[in-house]
Amino acid sequence: MTEAADARYMALAVSLGRRGQGNAWPNPAVGCVIVHEGRIVGRGWTAPGGRPHAEPQALAQAGALARGATAYVTLEPCAHHGQTPPCAQTLIDAGVARVVVAIEDNDPRVAGRGLAQMRAAGIQVDTGVLAAEAAQDLAGFRLARGQGRPWVTLKLASSFDGRIATATGESQWITGPEARRAVHAMRVSHDAVMVGAGTARADDPSLTVRGMGNVRQPVRVVVSRRLDLPLSSTLAQTAGDVPLWLCHGPDADAPLAEAWDGIGAKRLECALAGGQLDPASVLQALAQAGLTRVFCEGGGALAASLLSAGLVDELVGFTAGAVIGAEGRPAVGVMGVERLASAPRFDLVETRAVGGDILHRWQRKVA
Amino acid sequence: MTEAADARYMALAVSLGRRGQGNAWPNPAVGCVIVHEGRIVGRGWTAPGGRPHAEPQALAQAGALARGATAYVTLEPCAHHGQTPPCAQTLIDAGVARVVVAIEDNDPRVAGRGLAQMRAAGIQVDTGVLAAEAAQDLAGFRLARGQGRPWVTLKLASSFDGRIATATGESQWITGPEARRAVHAMRVSHDAVMVGAGTARADDPSLTVRGMGNVRQPVRVVVSRRLDLPLSSTLAQTAGDVPLWLCHGPDADAPLAEAWDGIGAKRLECALAGGQLDPASVLQALAQAGLTRVFCEGGGALAASLLSAGLVDELVGFTAGAVIGAEGRPAVGVMGVERLASAPRFDLVETRAVGGDILHRWQRKVA
Repeated sequence: MTEAADARYMALAVSLGRRGQGNAWPNPAVGCVIVHEGRIVGRGWTAPGGRPHAEPQALAQAGALARGATAYVTLEPCAHHGQTPPCAQTLIDAGVARVVVAIEDNDPRVAGRGLAQMRAAGIQVDTGVLAAEAAQDLAGFRLARGQGRPWVTLKLASSFDGRIATATGESQWITGPEARRAVHAMRVSHDAVMVGAGTARADDPSLTVRGMGNVRQPVRVVVSRRLDLPLSSTLAQTAGDVPLWLCHGPDADAPLAEAWDGIGAKRLECALAGGQLDPASVLQALAQAGLTRVFCEGGGALAASLLSAGLVDELVGFTAGAVIGAEGRPAVGVMGVERLASAPRFDLVETRAVGGDILHRWQRKVA
Repeated sequence: MTEAADARYMALAVSLGRRGQGNAWPNPAVGCVIVHEGRIVGRGWTAPGGRPHAEPQALAQAGALARGATAYVTLEPCAHHGQTPPCAQTLIDAGVARVVVAIEDNDPRVAGRGLAQMRAAGIQVDTGVLAAEAAQDLAGFRLARGQGRPWVTLKLASSFDGRIATATGESQWITGPEARRAVHAMRVSHDAVMVGAGTARADDPSLTVRGMGNVRQPVRVVVSRRLDLPLSSTLAQTAGDVPLWLCHGPDADAPLAEAWDGIGAKRLECALAGGQLDPASVLQALAQAGLTRVFCEGGGALAASLLSAGLVDELVGFTAGAVIGAEGRPAVGVMGVERLASAPRFDLVETRAVGGDILHRWQRKVA
């Protein structure tokens, strides 16, 4: 097999894996392609909810043609017995001759053991094909396993001058319908949508995905130290239909907590730091609850808190050609940055027009 | 001649005309191409300082081949005797058979008379070829003649969250060297660079064009109601080398005015409105002094004042992947916008990466 062919099949596996993004948590969204004598005989990706994994689905498609075939997998096949047999063993049992892996799994229960098992069974194992692409797509899972927190995308839709609302709080709509549709598509590729309590109170959002067909709804996360959101809010009213999780402090009111429990919301108690909810503790709680990719949509205080703590992996800006002026509400709150050198910096990924607005994506600067 | 050929030759004339942008004031930056039997025999554009015009230069190149040729001109040839004979007459005298014009001149001294003169002399005159492109390039001249004010490009270089400096005033550098170089190229295509007094005091800029070869320096305009800039500033120290114009109010201190006169600065007295310099009066004074294209680089107060008055034609944003937070200095000051519907809106022209930053250009929304 040539390197070019390996890269081509792995690119397909990567793109299959992406279908599971936002849908596979707490498991990684993996893609798998089985190639038998130059013909694709099996394709799979992690199923909704994380099972079955990509490999057994692709192998099932391939059937007897898996014997002697090459399997392309975006992540090292698992080696531990969970609810299902380990995928490394499944590949061995199917008689696959060669396995090409994009990146190793940093889950301590795997961490090279999947590769070793397959090699011990006589399979030729090659790694590192399209590693950067796979690592990008699987970054949330790897962060959750490695650092105990999910990937955080912070999206801010603002005026040309960085305002998310007028002084009187009017924010609908600064950006146009195409930008809002792009936001819904981004929500789908994340496990959860997260906002601060101020935004939840001011905008009374539903935070659901709309207009994208029949998709699994991301979890809705509200960061509210005191749980003092109105029980009449859209979020509360829909808690029975779409998961609603509340990250709160240890000092939240007990009767309020009971009320939220009563309507089906899930509460995650988090630590305080400096008199505020500690954003690191919030993310830790979300990772422990299984989330790997979180899409934060503000407001300014939560955005500032995540940015100050260095906990934002990707910044997404939607900028409109409207100017609101300095009385408007800032997209990012007070951060305590005194020197430019200490301002968090991000590398440009892309910029393009989306309807009458622009989209610009940035990722954490690699030092 | 086919329509496609007309458009092709006119496109060349438009691109030649653009060479004079920022260099031709108080005259329009016109381009001219002479085509004789399918061969380009003359090319011209408005010379630095506005004379000679494009047409006589192109005709001089064509020589005897102008007879029977077609002339492509981006703007209706002038019909009035100024310091030189009118171009319409020069084209007639050269024996040109056909003149193709992109747009008519809205200067009341021309306004169709150039076309009429040439038609009366038996020349075939066609208009409207690449009219939109020519109108865009000549918008400053047309605004100056039609509304008595120059085209205003407002450039703001800010952090992701719309801040132009930290709380302590640190602003160098938010954007990278490529973005700063792009700013110098934009300065060259304008007649003048303009800042508010606050920016002049805070940054002590030179506002000159650097690193672009031997170019005519744009006029430097500072809007300072009281003329209370330090005479030790870089702007003051270089007033003898590069034109420095000061727009001030009627209440500026007389000894200060004398001091600025003494070092070679030009003063333009402007009217007040609501206790501030009236931005409309400032632009009127600049147009009367001959400027057709002004590049405003802030600060926030001047930007807000121009935007509130509806006097910004093009918005240029350079946005960096740094986040400064709400204590930082806003790119646009207080504007008094209460309802989103009353926020000034601009249409997207382009967005692209410039080094590690993004550039986004917007133009006044056409109602």
